[in-house]
Amino acid sequence: MKRIAVYPGTFDPVTNGHVDLVERSLRLFDEVIVAIAANPKKEPLFALQERIDMFRKAIGKRGNVMIEGFDCLLVDYMKEKKAVGLIRGLRAVSDFEYEMQMALMNRRLDEDIETVFLMPSEEYSFITSTIVKEAASYGGDVSSLVPRIVVQKLRKKFGSRQHC
Amino acid sequence: MKRIAVYPGTFDPVTNGHVDLVERSLRLFDEVIVAIAANPKKEPLFALQERIDMFRKAIGKRGNVMIEGFDCLLVDYMKEKKAVGLIRGLRAVSDFEYEMQMALMNRRLDEDIETVFLMPSEEYSFITSTIVKEAASYGGDVSSLVPRIVVQKLRKKFGSRQHC
Amino acid sequence: MKRIAVYPGTFDPVTNGHVDLVERSLRLFDEVIVAIAANPKKEPLFALQERIDMFRKAIGKRGNVMIEGFDCLLVDYMKEKKAVGLIRGLRAVSDFEYEMQMALMNRRLDEDIETVFLMPSEEYSFITSTIVKEAASYGGDVSSLVPRIVVQKLRKKFGSRQHC
Amino acid sequence: MKRIAVYPGTFDPVTNGHVDLVERSLRLFDEVIVAIAANPKKEPLFALQERIDMFRKAIGKRGNVMIEGFDCLLVDYMKEKKAVGLIRGLRAVSDFEYEMQMALMNRRLDEDIETVFLMPSEEYSFITSTIVKEAASYGGDVSSLVPRIVVQKLRKKFGSRQHC
Amino acid sequence: MKRIAVYPGTFDPVTNGHVDLVERSLRLFDEVIVAIAANPKKEPLFALQERIDMFRKAIGKRGNVMIEGFDCLLVDYMKEKKAVGLIRGLRAVSDFEYEMQMALMNRRLDEDIETVFLMPSEEYSFITSTIVKEAASYGGDVSSLVPRIVVQKLRKKFGSRQHC
Amino acid sequence: MKRIAVYPGTFDPVTNGHVDLVERSLRLFDEVIVAIAANPKKEPLFALQERIDMFRKAIGKRGNVMIEGFDCLLVDYMKEKKAVGLIRGLRAVSDFEYEMQMALMNRRLDEDIETVFLMPSEEYSFITSTIVKEAASYGGDVSSLVPRIVVQKLRKKFGSRQHC
Repeated sequence: MKRIAVYPGTFDPVTNGHVDLVERSLRLFDEVIVAIAANPKKEPLFALQERIDMFRKAIGKRGNVMIEGFDCLLVDYMKEKKAVGLIRGLRAVSDFEYEMQMALMNRRLDEDIETVFLMPSEEYSFITSTIVKEAASYGGDVSSLVPRIVVQKLRKKFGSRQHC
Repeated sequence: MKRIAVYPGTFDPVTNGHVDLVERSLRLFDEVIVAIAANPKKEPLFALQERIDMFRKAIGKRGNVMIEGFDCLLVDYMKEKKAVGLIRGLRAVSDFEYEMQMALMNRRLDEDIETVFLMPSEEYSFITSTIVKEAASYGGDVSSLVPRIVVQKLRKKFGSRQHC
Repeated sequence: MKRIAVYPGTFDPVTNGHVDLVERSLRLFDEVIVAIAANPKKEPLFALQERIDMFRKAIGKRGNVMIEGFDCLLVDYMKEKKAVGLIRGLRAVSDFEYEMQMALMNRRLDEDIETVFLMPSEEYSFITSTIVKEAASYGGDVSSLVPRIVVQKLRKKFGSRQHC
Repeated sequence: MKRIAVYPGTFDPVTNGHVDLVERSLRLFDEVIVAIAANPKKEPLFALQERIDMFRKAIGKRGNVMIEGFDCLLVDYMKEKKAVGLIRGLRAVSDFEYEMQMALMNRRLDEDIETVFLMPSEEYSFITSTIVKEAASYGGDVSSLVPRIVVQKLRKKFGSRQHC
Repeated sequence: MKRIAVYPGTFDPVTNGHVDLVERSLRLFDEVIVAIAANPKKEPLFALQERIDMFRKAIGKRGNVMIEGFDCLLVDYMKEKKAVGLIRGLRAVSDFEYEMQMALMNRRLDEDIETVFLMPSEEYSFITSTIVKEAASYGGDVSSLVPRIVVQKLRKKFGSRQHC
Repeated sequence: MKRIAVYPGTFDPVTNGHVDLVERSLRLFDEVIVAIAANPKKEPLFALQERIDMFRKAIGKRGNVMIEGFDCLLVDYMKEKKAVGLIRGLRAVSDFEYEMQMALMNRRLDEDIETVFLMPSEEYSFITSTIVKEAASYGGDVSSLVPRIVVQKLRKKFGSRQHC
């Protein structure tokens, strides 16, 4: 039986930490589906399709990784995909509390779903999409934190470095 | 001397965890006043009157529980009610930090007020109004997490389950 | 009906933070019983009787505070005393996690018991018996942190300040 | 390819939370090896062989679960077993910090090993072997927290309930 | 060589805790530059110039403290000022996580910058600009928490105490 | 005026994280004194003199770093050395709580002392002396985590790798 995992998120935009987590998930599962939440309420910087495209470029062509958008209840989505594992990255304590709440909620909504917490490489331990956008908005160099395609897209959005 | 406690919150909407906390408070105090903050800045999903009505239906008619709205400084409200205890639920660490700040602030504003932290039943330990609304907005079944009246109200707001 | 609370601990030795918590508990309960755990496994610095005596001297004669030792299951002790509230002080996050575990365990052992978390005055927020003993062991001046009787007892134990 | 996970611990003694975690792991892996650390430095209450026996009785005969002792570097043990996943339960924040340190250390010692954090059922969220032993040492009823065999063993160790 | 530190923030408005931190920084550095972020996205209550003026009045005329606004990448600003230390106050755990992320991010953007965490006096440990504004918006007395000039400015913004 | 900092600890043994912190401190202070606590109660693995020698070898000869043992109240030691800053590394949340308690205690004992928290490089963020000793006791390769001299000393203590 093929074991499938879903790795959900807003990925606005994808970071090296997210890519690292996909690689780690592939050691444990036969297939990983990156499920990008439409999340219009959060007013993402990048449109859903852009976020999908960036993640695809970052990962490259792979037989066992699928990247797509979704806009429904996560547990329904997973059932449809016949996924058994819900992948989440763990970085920090505040993360952890919220993640635990979400995991217990999802278990209540569907008890067949098992949330699997993985730890990104420590060099990516502090990277969040938010902090990347904040640095990039002032022209900070984030090329060691996000895939090349994201560096380009951020530069287009925010322009070049602002002088103090 | 009758000991009165105030249990303040936005309660947007009331959950089973909130109801559980009222029950627990009644073991310790002679009367509990649920004080629902108007909180227009937070843009609540439900209007103040709706939130009051839902909490009242959830609790039922009881001689020692009062439910009302308020829109002033909490410590002033408590003084007017001659309350000695300020009830707060403790769930998680991030909670705890914020709660401690609020409790110290309230003590500074009126040192006669004692914040009393109680722990909800562990089966409600992960429920927040926010997480309930998020699940319900996609049609998730939250009937084990909130009173029946809230299930109905949420369904009206968000409609039926969305397909993936 | 008289509401009784039990405030359990090792109190090795009592600090100003503990005394502060007794005062706060008296606003909420008709009677507070300070229950000092024998705790021989922890190898306390002071014998049980000494710990009882120090707490009594620190509190002084009061009609609504009782101080005694105990060496049995806390929930059994509370049932015998007809206590409804179990008082615990909350200082820090690590505290909080352990306290929450204990509270859920005690609830499982006897669901009639309600743990009530109170916050000590912020000027005592960092004081623990352990940190006091550590400072005192090198002759540090802890007279602003513990009752006078404790200062004397600690000085007897550890002698005068050591030179560097 | 068969995916094997190792679930290491002292298990002194096994609790319902540990058993729950084995069940959850079996959803994700083809085989789970419970690896019980000899850990003589920690002075466990039960001998290694007793801890192995109790876990075996608790789990029952199963083709995809193996239970054995080990007394070497965990990453060496896992390599020998050809395991890809290292299972750890996540309960609370203090846990989390320590677990993250251990996981990063193990990754440094062998980068092929992936630590997988799973969440026990919330009804076991507060149970630790330590808290169980503490309650049992005073005769507290822990039969809803540990397997039947452990209840019996603890009773033998600690005798019947002590009066206050 | 003169050692310069930058203490960045939104300071909307300055509190006694911020002033306390400037004093502490002056023990360690030869000059402290308070760098007030324009931060238009956060929609501050006070305009940048007002925030600068309030901080200046709060600190008074001092040769080794400079207060100014900035609207660029913090690490660029610091390089221009030839600053070696980036001062941040540490209050609570949630703080700590975010602060650590920011500090690691800034180190990545410029590895010559060292973030220095200092602890405000415990009497200010719970004060944040946010909590002060919330209390003041209902007319709460915050005169023990913020400089006199801020009390006046808040009163102008929010008017007198609202009745319950 | 020369600014002196003290970096106290048990350093049993020194790790790369400790060395990193000394380097960072030297950017901020004119002189750093590494003060190694005798700490006989903790039963260190290495004798005080060994710990001093290992730290000296790890740092090498430097005019602005001094390494010595101490066995008295830290604040007294610092006063004698005319030190203004007390350096502490911050790694994780549990750390943070304890560190904050110690810092407030030291401030109470001598209000002229300012505790300065620095963050080690993220690649050392999980290393503690304890975790290093645990890995080394089973023959784990810790050569990327501690100075070369410590690798040698640990090997002498614990012998070669144990087979599973």
